[in-house]
Amino acid sequence: MQIDILYSGVCHSDLHQARDDWGGSLYPMVPGHEIVGRVVKVGEHVTKLKVGDIAGVGTVVDSCRHCDPCNAGLEIYCEEGCTPTYNGKERGSDKLTFGGYSDQIVTDERFVVTIPNTLDLKAVAPLLCAGITTYSPLRHWKVGKGQKVGIIGLGGLGHLGVKFAKALDAHVVMITTSPDKGKDALRLGADEVLVSKDKAAMAKAKATFHFLLNTIPVSHDVNPYLELLKLDGAMALVGALTPLEPIVGFNLMLPRRSIGGSATGSMKETQEMIDFCAMHNIVSDVEMIQMQDINTAWERMRKNDVRYRFVIDMASLKSAA
Amino acid sequence: MQIDILYSGVCHSDLHQARDDWGGSLYPMVPGHEIVGRVVKVGEHVTKLKVGDIAGVGTVVDSCRHCDPCNAGLEIYCEEGCTPTYNGKERGSDKLTFGGYSDQIVTDERFVVTIPNTLDLKAVAPLLCAGITTYSPLRHWKVGKGQKVGIIGLGGLGHLGVKFAKALDAHVVMITTSPDKGKDALRLGADEVLVSKDKAAMAKAKATFHFLLNTIPVSHDVNPYLELLKLDGAMALVGALTPLEPIVGFNLMLPRRSIGGSATGSMKETQEMIDFCAMHNIVSDVEMIQMQDINTAWERMRKNDVRYRFVIDMASLKSAA
Repeated sequence: MQIDILYSGVCHSDLHQARDDWGGSLYPMVPGHEIVGRVVKVGEHVTKLKVGDIAGVGTVVDSCRHCDPCNAGLEIYCEEGCTPTYNGKERGSDKLTFGGYSDQIVTDERFVVTIPNTLDLKAVAPLLCAGITTYSPLRHWKVGKGQKVGIIGLGGLGHLGVKFAKALDAHVVMITTSPDKGKDALRLGADEVLVSKDKAAMAKAKATFHFLLNTIPVSHDVNPYLELLKLDGAMALVGALTPLEPIVGFNLMLPRRSIGGSATGSMKETQEMIDFCAMHNIVSDVEMIQMQDINTAWERMRKNDVRYRFVIDMASLKSAA
Repeated sequence: MQIDILYSGVCHSDLHQARDDWGGSLYPMVPGHEIVGRVVKVGEHVTKLKVGDIAGVGTVVDSCRHCDPCNAGLEIYCEEGCTPTYNGKERGSDKLTFGGYSDQIVTDERFVVTIPNTLDLKAVAPLLCAGITTYSPLRHWKVGKGQKVGIIGLGGLGHLGVKFAKALDAHVVMITTSPDKGKDALRLGADEVLVSKDKAAMAKAKATFHFLLNTIPVSHDVNPYLELLKLDGAMALVGALTPLEPIVGFNLMLPRRSIGGSATGSMKETQEMIDFCAMHNIVSDVEMIQMQDINTAWERMRKNDVRYRFVIDMASLKSAA
């Protein structure tokens, strides 16, 4: 279906990929995989959305559609590799995929979710990547009532992690290096703040957490966080793709703990998250920008100077043209 | 109860602790936590075993008995710290605990398992540590029929991992640096061998395993093994207590994978394992030694020159006395 893009969230990975921080970037590149828009045209077999509906597109626009993960609806984990919304190639072709910093996108309905009009649409955009990246592990590791859950790092991902974990009825602890951010986390719904630089507080919190959502986007030492986990506690890594500082084996053994990774989530789960957000009135905290401001926004994002997600009003693209 | 020790397995950790490789060793030290003996005296409240029964003592001889893990029967994960069979202190005392390289041990029945006479008793001793250390994670991560399971490293732990995983009906792959050990793994019941130095074979095996039991006892790079795991596959670390080489976050995310640790197992599970061994006729491959040979045995163990566990015939201690 063809979608007129209304809003496009600015993800930290846009900056990484535009600057080829991870290698293998394909140019020309149009970043953006947090897309909210209006359906303007549908093919004759499309049943999910109709013209005029609000549509969301996230990080994936295609996959092999026949491997076990695809059959299980986990297209992001496609064994042949999913097709990223941008900085990828269309399947069986050398044609590049282009993302949401644009006026339009054409996508198969399988990779589109329905956005209810009741939500603040500009603040929905970041849910399509930051949202599902935090919602999916919270669900996969079965976070819920009676659990003490730590959200490590307060940024685009972390602030949504706090909102989701709270809505899932967990006791939510914001774990941050910054007491200031801690205060803001309380506003977002956290029950407690644990300042990770406070060694006494960290020691006191040892072996008390059921689950940790680690949103730190760069290489770091996870050992002090692992020690916070109770027996059979788990830490999900959603930010750091690069090598972590050495994990001490003992920290995983006594008590038995685990660390896992998670990459966004399935299309089915993305729709479930949008519906969950509609029910709990959850959206991202956003700062709106014009397309013309993107370089400044990237610089500010690099310095963690945004509360908590930039979103581009794509109307600005048309006014500039 | 009071137990006359018949056999004492020689665990790699005996050497580490005797030489203070991990720091904090307490001397004088009597190593040994793979103990099989005969009950010679019981207190009036003892119901589990009677005089003449064959008893097993593993790595733990006491715990707080009131924390959540203890209440769940997971004494090894006692929140106040369990009391190790040797190189520890008796609870509420400065009296050191002494292990199985001895003629007798006195232990509370809670920390003793019953050994059926039908098993080869000298080859049972290593089950009390090496056995439960491999059995427990295979059960915890629900290894079974229809799964492809890799056992990484063929030593005291690995050779029992192969036997258990096979008895649990998994498709078992021995992952080793040594093609020679690979051949021996087939004798032990492995269905396949994957030589980890063979880059083409490792690449071909990418994302095909459900579970990996990593028995490598030293710091190493787990990334090449992580890449072998399918979506939602897990690696359990049971050997390396020291810092691992940096784990690349991406390897945990695409696809979603996890790495966890595991330390021996509960007393209940240890009894379950012994019963499982009786049912499937599983014991350790052992090389018997006299107490007088321990230094040579440790040197050979250090060089991985034992197939697959030394066991001390404790009668040798009496003959020496």
